[in-house]
Amino acid sequence: MLGIMQDWPLTVDKILEHANQQHGAREIITRRVEGNIVRTTYAELYTHAKQVSNALKDMNIGLGDRVATLGWNSERHMASWYGTMGIGAVLHTINPRLHPEQIAWIANHAEDKVLIFDKTFLPIVESIKGLLETVKTFVIYAGADTMPENSLGAIPFDIWIDGRSTECRWGDFPEETACGLCYTSGTTGDPKGVLYSHRSNVLHTLVTMSKDAMGMGCADVVLPVVPMFHANAWGLALSCPATGANMVMPGAQMDGASIYELLDTEKVTITAAVPTVWLMLLNYLEENNLKLPYLNRVIIGGSAIPEKILRAFEQDFEVDVVHAWGMTETSPLGTLGTLPPHLVDADVDTRMAQKMKQGRPPFGVELRIVDDAGNVLPRDGVTSGRLLVRGAAIAAGYFKGAGGDVLDADGFFDTGDVANLDQYGTMTITDRAKDVIKSGGEWISSIDIENIAVGHDKVANAAAIGVYHPKWDERPLLVIQPMPGETPTKEEILKSLEGKIAKWWTPDDVAFVDEIPLGATGKINKLALRKTFKDYKLPTA
Amino acid sequence: MLGIMQDWPLTVDKILEHANQQHGAREIITRRVEGNIVRTTYAELYTHAKQVSNALKDMNIGLGDRVATLGWNSERHMASWYGTMGIGAVLHTINPRLHPEQIAWIANHAEDKVLIFDKTFLPIVESIKGLLETVKTFVIYAGADTMPENSLGAIPFDIWIDGRSTECRWGDFPEETACGLCYTSGTTGDPKGVLYSHRSNVLHTLVTMSKDAMGMGCADVVLPVVPMFHANAWGLALSCPATGANMVMPGAQMDGASIYELLDTEKVTITAAVPTVWLMLLNYLEENNLKLPYLNRVIIGGSAIPEKILRAFEQDFEVDVVHAWGMTETSPLGTLGTLPPHLVDADVDTRMAQKMKQGRPPFGVELRIVDDAGNVLPRDGVTSGRLLVRGAAIAAGYFKGAGGDVLDADGFFDTGDVANLDQYGTMTITDRAKDVIKSGGEWISSIDIENIAVGHDKVANAAAIGVYHPKWDERPLLVIQPMPGETPTKEEILKSLEGKIAKWWTPDDVAFVDEIPLGATGKINKLALRKTFKDYKLPTA
Ligand SMILES: Nc1ncnc2c1ncn2[C@@H]1O[C@H](COP(=O)(O)O)[C@@H](O)[C@H]1O
Repeated sequence: MLGIMQDWPLTVDKILEHANQQHGAREIITRRVEGNIVRTTYAELYTHAKQVSNALKDMNIGLGDRVATLGWNSERHMASWYGTMGIGAVLHTINPRLHPEQIAWIANHAEDKVLIFDKTFLPIVESIKGLLETVKTFVIYAGADTMPENSLGAIPFDIWIDGRSTECRWGDFPEETACGLCYTSGTTGDPKGVLYSHRSNVLHTLVTMSKDAMGMGCADVVLPVVPMFHANAWGLALSCPATGANMVMPGAQMDGASIYELLDTEKVTITAAVPTVWLMLLNYLEENNLKLPYLNRVIIGGSAIPEKILRAFEQDFEVDVVHAWGMTETSPLGTLGTLPPHLVDADVDTRMAQKMKQGRPPFGVELRIVDDAGNVLPRDGVTSGRLLVRGAAIAAGYFKGAGGDVLDADGFFDTGDVANLDQYGTMTITDRAKDVIKSGGEWISSIDIENIAVGHDKVANAAAIGVYHPKWDERPLLVIQPMPGETPTKEEILKSLEGKIAKWWTPDDVAFVDEIPLGATGKINKLALRKTFKDYKLPTA
Repeated sequence: MLGIMQDWPLTVDKILEHANQQHGAREIITRRVEGNIVRTTYAELYTHAKQVSNALKDMNIGLGDRVATLGWNSERHMASWYGTMGIGAVLHTINPRLHPEQIAWIANHAEDKVLIFDKTFLPIVESIKGLLETVKTFVIYAGADTMPENSLGAIPFDIWIDGRSTECRWGDFPEETACGLCYTSGTTGDPKGVLYSHRSNVLHTLVTMSKDAMGMGCADVVLPVVPMFHANAWGLALSCPATGANMVMPGAQMDGASIYELLDTEKVTITAAVPTVWLMLLNYLEENNLKLPYLNRVIIGGSAIPEKILRAFEQDFEVDVVHAWGMTETSPLGTLGTLPPHLVDADVDTRMAQKMKQGRPPFGVELRIVDDAGNVLPRDGVTSGRLLVRGAAIAAGYFKGAGGDVLDADGFFDTGDVANLDQYGTMTITDRAKDVIKSGGEWISSIDIENIAVGHDKVANAAAIGVYHPKWDERPLLVIQPMPGETPTKEEILKSLEGKIAKWWTPDDVAFVDEIPLGATGKINKLALRKTFKDYKLPTA
């Protein structure tokens, strides 16, 4: 027997319909790539998105067709999203930090028909135009006056939509319809596309709106520094209109001074970004002796949060830090570090230690850890295993079947992370499965070592990797990028680890490099590091 | 083209799975009908619910079968819910305040197979046992020691589930499967059953968890005074486990002293009930000179909120009032009175005036107002029309087809309320469609008149109804139930309306009664009143 409730498909166009009707006057404040600030409203966004839909329909773009963007966070980028998704076409965000050839490969694999991009990326697009097999139309986020010279026959975005009808039927397709496409920049093999559905996007939005997740309301002002091309800006491009929160869009400028200016002048209450952004901001605040009086909450994820960033926000600036874990395949929010009730009134060190962990899944996300044979491991806060995840906004596979069948018999997706879970369901990442250091058959957590090492004053970045050892098979080597002007010694570094990790985890050696290589999403490229240190001879070997 | 995301049906068993795994130690604190307080956890609830499932399965209850409860809010009632819903049977909450014969009619119409009830209601059940055609098993919320004598062959709940296996596969059916059944106590015709689905319940839960709706988190302590038999306790039986909030269950005692004791000893942060409950509490607080130091938020709905209750909470006790509107057919939350951003910093009178309105729909609920011909009316804050609603948790019809086709061509449900909408989407109920007073073809809002009249010190309750007038067709008669010991005059009452309503809305007469009749959900029974005053001759007629 079925319930007798309305058939109301979960499609993302309903989010903007809602924002237009309930929060039409709420604003999107964008820093243009030209540097100036422009203010638009959800009502205007709605109009522009409808015009984008009609522009696409006039090009015969419809259900299932891919429209790509190479764009910073901006109100025009938002209009492209909703205009594309509303008619059932698929919005494909490309990460402009990838190698240009990889961008071309991805656009061809996705069979993108249109490429809409920011001026900043014109050199990239010009350089790969010969490689693009399916893109027929280029649109640049610009007006007639700000349009750059180009050899692509590109159309300025504002002119592309100007004067078009704002009448266009949205939705009206099944909620499982494809909605967004985002490729993961795997360190091995070709990138693989995650194909979000309208249903998964709407459910992710609802889940992340709850108090213990993003927790925004209609009176909040949200600054997503995390780019829309990086795992959907953690869903903010959807959850802000759904709640009516103002959005502040940083465009191309994510340095400390620019972010501070927006936080301050727009009285931002909630912001979100990867740790590196916050390092820049905190340095700027310190140098200029500034405060953050309006900011209530900062969501930090994408990689583990360094303790000094956590403590600076919480203790120096009285900003609530929510450490979040997720990945492109999880839409992306998987866990959030809101304090569990029994720790709300704990002493500061206990609270900070809890907040260093990756957090707990909201209702809608199921986690488990398993051993190599797939047996579910205990939630004791100690035992580590492969982290598996299941839920309505978790990938079931990749675009065009890449990577094959990725779910286990119970329908769980293997994240490739290694983690433990405690009795309250708090998850702590101890490693990437492929980065785990296996010493004598036992696992050593590279992340734990790195977190402590980057806490050292003279250390700018740190990476622990496993290198060959005749007796133990692998032993940890700690690679250090010193702070500019500093020359820390091996002894100093190892001393800083003492007492904070198991003795047998202590790295067998420390190597110093000018720069630790980073990947396109700002994470340490361990594959490259392992290559560099492939033949490294440990003093203990 | 479909997205490639996991198939994760939205079934309510997942909510308790989540609570068990993530919030297993969080508590349900219940006042038993015997008066003592018992504490259980979500982990224990999970165990008990699994045992309920096995008890039901042993009786051959399965997918689609109806299990009825006549119960106060309690941890045992919760176990019945989840145990029933988990196996795809339908939990049918019956309102014990209905006339016993109506209860029998409803149980027969629903074809309930099991009836589980609180001791309080034994006299009712005994009185109708001869009328019950389908109920084969009676279970009483009691242990061996607290079981009352009865002629029903009833089983004590604790013994019914004791020692049963806690292994039982939940879910595993389509999310559209029927989940809950609740009859609306229509004032005309037979009651009609709203048949919730798992999907609608889960989506309602997610929608109501957001900051601007119920806004609870894992560290909150929630006291649902609103009964589980009244429109699902406004979803709290689902949203509390979904977030991990503690639940405080008042059982049968909803008087001021009992509610205060729970608010205080359990440090309740969020509570919810109809206005009458708050009147009792506020009187008790005043008489005993008490404060509410822990309470942050009170959700008030079910009928319009009297201004003195609003102001008492907000101004005397510094508790944030969220006025909510909804109905059984809307799961029930339709609108919530969280302040829109432009009024957050307004002066107190402006804020209070806004909070008297019914509020704004969250994402997931669509509202429109239409005239009698079905034309959509403007959102100008003045024009009133029939209030229509659409969404994933809104009824599409009634059980067994009662009432026929209830959706309009656009899929909207007619609420039977008359309301206006302003440009920010704030909805104000001006009347029930059937209670509207039509004077010379124009509508007079009975609710506006009543709201002002109950603000008068000497007035306990007030109802405005239309009575026959030879010239205007109908004119308002204001019926007043004076405060005990008070004898207000017609002139005093009319004076209190002066300047607050349009002159032509002024009632043509005032009638005094000992008691204004109330229906089963505590609302004024206008049908009965109109009968009483059918032949009333107005002085103006
Ligand atoms: N906040 C409110 N203000 C005015 N009327 C309300 C409010 N909440 C509920 N109601 C009335 O109660 C009806 C629903 O009754 P029920 O289904 O018994 O909960 C609605 O259609 C309204 O007429």
